[in-house]
Amino acid sequence: MLCCEIVSVGTELLLGDILDTNAQYLSKELASMGIAVLHRSTVGDNPERLRQTVELALSRSDVVLLTGGLGPTADDITKEVCADVMGFALVRNDEAEESMRAFFKTRGRPMPESNLKQADVPQGGIVFQNDNGTAPGMAMEKDGKSVILLPGPPNEMRAMFADKVKPFLAAKTTGVIVSHTVRTMGIGESDMAERVAPLLRLSNPTVAPYAKQGEALLRVTAYADTQEEAEKRMAPILSQIRGILGEYIYGVDVEDIQHAVVQALLAKKLRVATAESCTAGYIAKRLTEVAGASDVFDCGLVTYSNDMKEKLLGVRHETLAKHGAVSAETATEMAAGAKRVSGADVAVAVTGVAGPGCSENKPVGLVYIGIADRDGARAVRFETGRRDREFNRYVTASRALHLVWQSIQKY
Amino acid sequence: MLCCEIVSVGTELLLGDILDTNAQYLSKELASMGIAVLHRSTVGDNPERLRQTVELALSRSDVVLLTGGLGPTADDITKEVCADVMGFALVRNDEAEESMRAFFKTRGRPMPESNLKQADVPQGGIVFQNDNGTAPGMAMEKDGKSVILLPGPPNEMRAMFADKVKPFLAAKTTGVIVSHTVRTMGIGESDMAERVAPLLRLSNPTVAPYAKQGEALLRVTAYADTQEEAEKRMAPILSQIRGILGEYIYGVDVEDIQHAVVQALLAKKLRVATAESCTAGYIAKRLTEVAGASDVFDCGLVTYSNDMKEKLLGVRHETLAKHGAVSAETATEMAAGAKRVSGADVAVAVTGVAGPGCSENKPVGLVYIGIADRDGARAVRFETGRRDREFNRYVTASRALHLVWQSIQKY
Repeated sequence: MLCCEIVSVGTELLLGDILDTNAQYLSKELASMGIAVLHRSTVGDNPERLRQTVELALSRSDVVLLTGGLGPTADDITKEVCADVMGFALVRNDEAEESMRAFFKTRGRPMPESNLKQADVPQGGIVFQNDNGTAPGMAMEKDGKSVILLPGPPNEMRAMFADKVKPFLAAKTTGVIVSHTVRTMGIGESDMAERVAPLLRLSNPTVAPYAKQGEALLRVTAYADTQEEAEKRMAPILSQIRGILGEYIYGVDVEDIQHAVVQALLAKKLRVATAESCTAGYIAKRLTEVAGASDVFDCGLVTYSNDMKEKLLGVRHETLAKHGAVSAETATEMAAGAKRVSGADVAVAVTGVAGPGCSENKPVGLVYIGIADRDGARAVRFETGRRDREFNRYVTASRALHLVWQSIQKY
Repeated sequence: MLCCEIVSVGTELLLGDILDTNAQYLSKELASMGIAVLHRSTVGDNPERLRQTVELALSRSDVVLLTGGLGPTADDITKEVCADVMGFALVRNDEAEESMRAFFKTRGRPMPESNLKQADVPQGGIVFQNDNGTAPGMAMEKDGKSVILLPGPPNEMRAMFADKVKPFLAAKTTGVIVSHTVRTMGIGESDMAERVAPLLRLSNPTVAPYAKQGEALLRVTAYADTQEEAEKRMAPILSQIRGILGEYIYGVDVEDIQHAVVQALLAKKLRVATAESCTAGYIAKRLTEVAGASDVFDCGLVTYSNDMKEKLLGVRHETLAKHGAVSAETATEMAAGAKRVSGADVAVAVTGVAGPGCSENKPVGLVYIGIADRDGARAVRFETGRRDREFNRYVTASRALHLVWQSIQKY
């Protein structure tokens, strides 16, 4: 099995200025190709430490994939260090230079001359042209080991990996790792793990529980010569899991709850609308992350103030005065209002206390989610149990989307 | 200078199932304390590889901070491996057991017995009780080196670090690293770097350019005995940067554009409203990430379909028919409509093609942003130059927020 190590380069990573989403993306992609990633490292723009990191990585892996440090500035030294470690000379690449000049031309901006440093590539190496930026990627191979360099900006890195590096790596692999992720809502990680405890001791396939932003997930992974064989190993395990956790499962291999909702709405030809107070657009934003959401979603109303809840959604003044904005009554009227205004089949509404401070003497993390569908309008109470504003808003949006998903199942 | 290394533990990280936000958080916190982070590693739930990683980290750093693998399941082995490397025995901790039982009791859920494994701590080590979950953190010290274990769930890890581990580490440090981040919009990273090129060669303070989600940033960092001395070193450099990049700078040390906007609105006692098509709630969501946004934001309208643009915002049917939804005319009318409906001082509207496919024969990445303020309503055209839906939506929301920020400066 081919073994790959990921090295993320950049002092801005070690200072915490930047979140390293590249390492996750590459990990996922490599796993899907049956390539094992056993180590990842992060190191700053320091030649000596980068050299040591690359040498260690080469000593224990077949392929070392580096991201970052290919930029035009003097502290970008990834290429220089790797070429030196691998014994390659750097030479100016005409195609890269041309594409760099063209890139700036189409944007109507003058090209800073320092940019040309990016067109230097290892002599005898492989060059991956950059269709989304100026720094080309490259690969150097020696003694059965490969070092691959990718640019740091995620959009450039992802496009280059998918279009150019993936085929390059695919030629080196045998065997596949296949996995399926079972997604649940409404059950804790340890509770879930306890219920499927005997399965967690298996070795091929493996079953691993984990928690992710308020959801408990189970990942089932098998290794085999072919995809078919791997699937065959997993099928009975997946069916056992469905038997044990059925009521909590909203999908297998679905990307997230918003994808599950949009798929379900499309399948049943239904439309949804949103009315949001404390999540303030988060549900609409997540629904429309899914390409094609326009076929199931027309409008969302963010009513942050009480006035706007009355004006845009028709929540009654007395309801707000008597029960407050954070109440089952208000959530119910918000959902009914959103359904009426939009003409959608299902409407979901959220009102709650995201934090950090409490409001209306109601505790942080208390949320009411209203649902209006063909059975009328109602609300459920939900407590996140946390004080973290971003977490509370995310989890609340997830639960609201899950209630929409449950409502759709009836149609 | 104290040197710390971060090790993130978890096969789910290496498979790319989880994004490692913990490493970024810890990097930032440690940098702010004047603790150098020169390496970060990620390793799976594998005893042998974890042992090697911890031993390597101990050989080159004073403190090794590990996150993850303290959970209740059998593949959680971080504590066992670290205790073994450091030569500590594990014993049951009564306080941790009690707090664990109490944690489940307040949530009204039965505690799975497997959870008790989490109450084992190193004899002679330091225990950090977990106020937000069940796994306690811990520290083991020997021969001038420290190994610190923190739980993996970000909310538990962050609270424990801030409340307990930070004071523990602060006692070991001398000197401070202070940095300031200059945030710009509307200029590329290499163009910015070219303009401030002589500053990039300085050593204390250092000036480092980087790009982050469509913005070019400059980080100025100084190391000194005291905060005051560090500030003194940086002041002339910061003023030079303001002189060179002034027109592009929207803030120094402000968290992001939404914080800059909310602060500016609060300062001028103005209110903003949003009308969103392709960003579909993203602007509202980002504005309300800022605690206290309710003082400047009442409502947002997500009008994904043409019908809803007419119905909720009063965009004229002829405008949509003649110019299309993605046009300066529609953006202008959307902004004017949002200002009218909400009664806000400034309204911003967005309509564009987020991708992946094009629409109305208009290219992916084309966006019109409308602004309505006391000078009337108008729109600007903007091209992201990318095909990535999430990136296009994020950058468009950023630009829209920046236009609001620019509008506020006039008041």
